[in-house]
Amino acid sequence: MRILSGIQPSGKLHIGNYFGMMKTMIGHMERAQLYVFIVDLHALTSVHDRDRLAQGTIEAAADFLALGLDPEKCLFWVQSDVPEVCELTWILSTLTPMGLLERCHSYKDKIAKGISPSHGLFAYPVLMAADILLYQAEQVPVGKDQKQHLEVARDLAQKFNNEYGETFVIPEPGIDEQTATVPGLDGQKMSKSYDNTIPIFLDGKALKKKIMAIQTDATGVDEPKNPNTCNLFQIFRLFASPSRLAEVRDLYLHGGAAYGHIKLELFELISEHFAAARARKEELLADPGEVRRIMKQGAEKARAQAVTTLDLVRDRVGLRY
Amino acid sequence: MRILSGIQPSGKLHIGNYFGMMKTMIGHMERAQLYVFIVDLHALTSVHDRDRLAQGTIEAAADFLALGLDPEKCLFWVQSDVPEVCELTWILSTLTPMGLLERCHSYKDKIAKGISPSHGLFAYPVLMAADILLYQAEQVPVGKDQKQHLEVARDLAQKFNNEYGETFVIPEPGIDEQTATVPGLDGQKMSKSYDNTIPIFLDGKALKKKIMAIQTDATGVDEPKNPNTCNLFQIFRLFASPSRLAEVRDLYLHGGAAYGHIKLELFELISEHFAAARARKEELLADPGEVRRIMKQGAEKARAQAVTTLDLVRDRVGLRY
Repeated sequence: MRILSGIQPSGKLHIGNYFGMMKTMIGHMERAQLYVFIVDLHALTSVHDRDRLAQGTIEAAADFLALGLDPEKCLFWVQSDVPEVCELTWILSTLTPMGLLERCHSYKDKIAKGISPSHGLFAYPVLMAADILLYQAEQVPVGKDQKQHLEVARDLAQKFNNEYGETFVIPEPGIDEQTATVPGLDGQKMSKSYDNTIPIFLDGKALKKKIMAIQTDATGVDEPKNPNTCNLFQIFRLFASPSRLAEVRDLYLHGGAAYGHIKLELFELISEHFAAARARKEELLADPGEVRRIMKQGAEKARAQAVTTLDLVRDRVGLRY
Repeated sequence: MRILSGIQPSGKLHIGNYFGMMKTMIGHMERAQLYVFIVDLHALTSVHDRDRLAQGTIEAAADFLALGLDPEKCLFWVQSDVPEVCELTWILSTLTPMGLLERCHSYKDKIAKGISPSHGLFAYPVLMAADILLYQAEQVPVGKDQKQHLEVARDLAQKFNNEYGETFVIPEPGIDEQTATVPGLDGQKMSKSYDNTIPIFLDGKALKKKIMAIQTDATGVDEPKNPNTCNLFQIFRLFASPSRLAEVRDLYLHGGAAYGHIKLELFELISEHFAAARARKEELLADPGEVRRIMKQGAEKARAQAVTTLDLVRDRVGLRY
């Protein structure tokens, strides 16, 4: 099974990302052919700042490498390092009915939010389809907001196959089972847009401050509490060992759980949990050339696949003869 | 002065093209840096037939080579052999306001004619802008129908330069002076859409039939006629020697011009005028591999320029670091 996933280079992974997407991705790495890439070309639709884009791309690469994405066990590259995707985008464009793009909610939502309508935003799903089809991906894990874009990719693959003969695999949406939803500081789902996150690579004072800010209720230390509805406990359980978790659950149920102490303990646990990744990230960012080298190597492997598909496509449409 | 011109791979050049665009182009070849390319990627917006596109591209290349476009004196290539243009298209898309494309008449006209609206047709001006800007063209000869598209290219160049710093030359529209308008068989402007053309590479019986079909009036042989309003004379003058032209003009003015004889003479003149080109074209089409080789060589030269521009662009926007 070939699974493909794009990563935005727009920084600051939080523990919600980690226990959601990252864990799933690392799982895929062990069990499937995993293709992961940083979508810098897509990011250009919103980032018009050279350094922000370049820095964001390097940092996203370092984040994922540090957290355990192993370039020996998967293909990991930067989108723009395989420029073949742009040629496929054009070719697919000539088969894309305008109505298909005009119906995309994501574009309409962005415009409704006041983002000025650019052709790049409008054409976004065609580039995404090219990304998916170029690598003949069988499965693409997509959230709700990207489901319609995957439909566009499926439509275009089918249309191309009908017009020119079997060429593309029709990708299926990935179903992310057992993905944990992590609550944020305020108890809502942890998300950048709610500004309630605990970033993975935060440490020391800044991390402690975040953790101390986790909202809890006013129940006294000695009173029994429900761990299942406690925001702090739901985060704590992600990091504590099973035996320690059982102990703390007991304190919740029978009295004795002091939020302040648990927070301090959580701070230690998180610090420790990501200590190696943090060190590895420091190391990587100290040598961005090495990060580039790793990513270029990934791009070479991805490009070999891309060229195979694109050559076939060129032949099918009459650009190679 | 760097002049850039795109050629549709959709066949059958006629003598109106020759005395219009071709003569001008060959003139540019002697006096300027001329960049000419066959727009197969653009053609994909209307041609979804592998063999038609591939054959059309080879034939267009053979036509222009046979008629005197000299790959030593200009850059002549096939658009899709420089795929960098697709990457620049994407990058420019992220700067292209939707309104700019929505206002393009050419797209609206095509839809009004019943062509089904595809994203390729809509994005056509962005690819065209990328073609022009990638080669830092200073002048682009454009007909009425393409003038607005050149405006799009100028707008995008200015926008990019403003946002990211001076990068692109702002292209100017070419003014084609002394371009002859050649009348067709029926006296209207010679044009494929009027079905009144004399194709350049026609010969023998088929050519003769066309020429005998040139419409003339019913004035008798001995009666004086006005050469300036005679369709046949206007075509004849493009091919006759100055001395022979003076003689025939005399016959028109003072009686004695027989349309039938003049047509036969015109047939001989056209046959002879294009004899070498016809032979050269036969030769080229007998060896399509050689045509590909010539075009690939042109593409290599063009690509060197393309890569220089694109590297700068990548650096400016944050895709190279």
